[in-house]
Amino acid sequence: MTGRLIGVGVGPGDPGLLTLNAIEALKVADVVAYFAKAGNESNARAIVADHLNGAEELPLLYPVTTEIPKEHAGYRDAIRDFYDVSAAAVASHLDDGRTVAVLSEGDPLFYGSYMHIHVRLSDRYPTEVIAGVTGMSGCWSSVGAPMTQGDDVFTVLPATLPEYELERRFADANAAVVMKIGRHLAKVRRALDRAGRLDRAIYVERGTMANASVMKLTDKLDMTAPYFAIVLVPGWEGRA
Amino acid sequence: MTGRLIGVGVGPGDPGLLTLNAIEALKVADVVAYFAKAGNESNARAIVADHLNGAEELPLLYPVTTEIPKEHAGYRDAIRDFYDVSAAAVASHLDDGRTVAVLSEGDPLFYGSYMHIHVRLSDRYPTEVIAGVTGMSGCWSSVGAPMTQGDDVFTVLPATLPEYELERRFADANAAVVMKIGRHLAKVRRALDRAGRLDRAIYVERGTMANASVMKLTDKLDMTAPYFAIVLVPGWEGRA
Repeated sequence: MTGRLIGVGVGPGDPGLLTLNAIEALKVADVVAYFAKAGNESNARAIVADHLNGAEELPLLYPVTTEIPKEHAGYRDAIRDFYDVSAAAVASHLDDGRTVAVLSEGDPLFYGSYMHIHVRLSDRYPTEVIAGVTGMSGCWSSVGAPMTQGDDVFTVLPATLPEYELERRFADANAAVVMKIGRHLAKVRRALDRAGRLDRAIYVERGTMANASVMKLTDKLDMTAPYFAIVLVPGWEGRA
Repeated sequence: MTGRLIGVGVGPGDPGLLTLNAIEALKVADVVAYFAKAGNESNARAIVADHLNGAEELPLLYPVTTEIPKEHAGYRDAIRDFYDVSAAAVASHLDDGRTVAVLSEGDPLFYGSYMHIHVRLSDRYPTEVIAGVTGMSGCWSSVGAPMTQGDDVFTVLPATLPEYELERRFADANAAVVMKIGRHLAKVRRALDRAGRLDRAIYVERGTMANASVMKLTDKLDMTAPYFAIVLVPGWEGRA
């Protein structure tokens, strides 16, 4: 008998946004695995810290790849090898009959690192995925911004898209979220302006944490932003 | 002192996907309000039934509008009047200093009926929104379908869009969810086929319930579907 693989969504950061199913999975898990950068605490582990009951921990530490440009094939190879090795480490516990909970910030199958384990192992082991509150839901809830209703078209865009693509897609949706803002803020702002959506855009840093920073994008005077900042473009337009 | 308004996301259906914050809100609420169709049990209330601690309940019952076509101005007026009256009922408790939890299936500010209360009252009363697991996260998690990763563009589309619009938008995104399938299934299927995405589409009925029905859309032989069925178009394409 092999063990069971459980992808556990732990939500956007507030431990109060853990679900009962996530807490139950932590109770039954023999091993709790989580991704982290070497030398950094795992955010996912910090969220569940109060619910760890002495299960064995399996940190999956991202390789240090700062010397390789992200666009380089060597970077992609290093990351793929890392996910292969991580999945093998999880599989080794499953083969020994242990249930492994793999933590995932937000929702596991929505931009989550857990997916790299899932696609490698879910065909071979009994697998369960526990949905979690997404980071973007955490952000718009803490801001109180009504995002979408009725027949709205909603879209999630990476800030890495070219400016004309961002502009076209803002104009083409009722509501949008732009992720991974980082050094792309000035471009995102210009695209929103040209699409006629700048007035409604909200800039959010550390959305679900105590030190969150939230403002209308038009009130943000500098164009510096951390990688994980997001911009919300709510769809509600005075309809009630 | 007025009371506090709390929009409480109760998740997609499984009571195990309630968050700790949602349960806490039910503990402190003096009044628990929820939308329902007259004569039907409220889904949101059913999800939290085990956590109701004797708070006063305020059902907000949708008017019976079957005699008015949805496109008709009379329908919109009736619904808007209903939300006005519902918000006034909630406000009356808030004015009396009572904390009111308004339940919302899924996530309150993402296609949730709670928003109609929020936009009418959040300027006037202390308001908090508790994010919830969305219905679509519940669906793709129960199916185990890896939806989005990295720089994927993700979009949510209503099945009511014209066929050419659906086709264009499927081709324009890495991953998509189509909501409110109902009588639009044949059209959605044709649009997916023309966009080259039919092979990956998954049809989901009652996604997070015990009697869920899930199949590849190509395996669905009839074109009948309930209103709340959804179609998932996962973005993961063998990248690992």
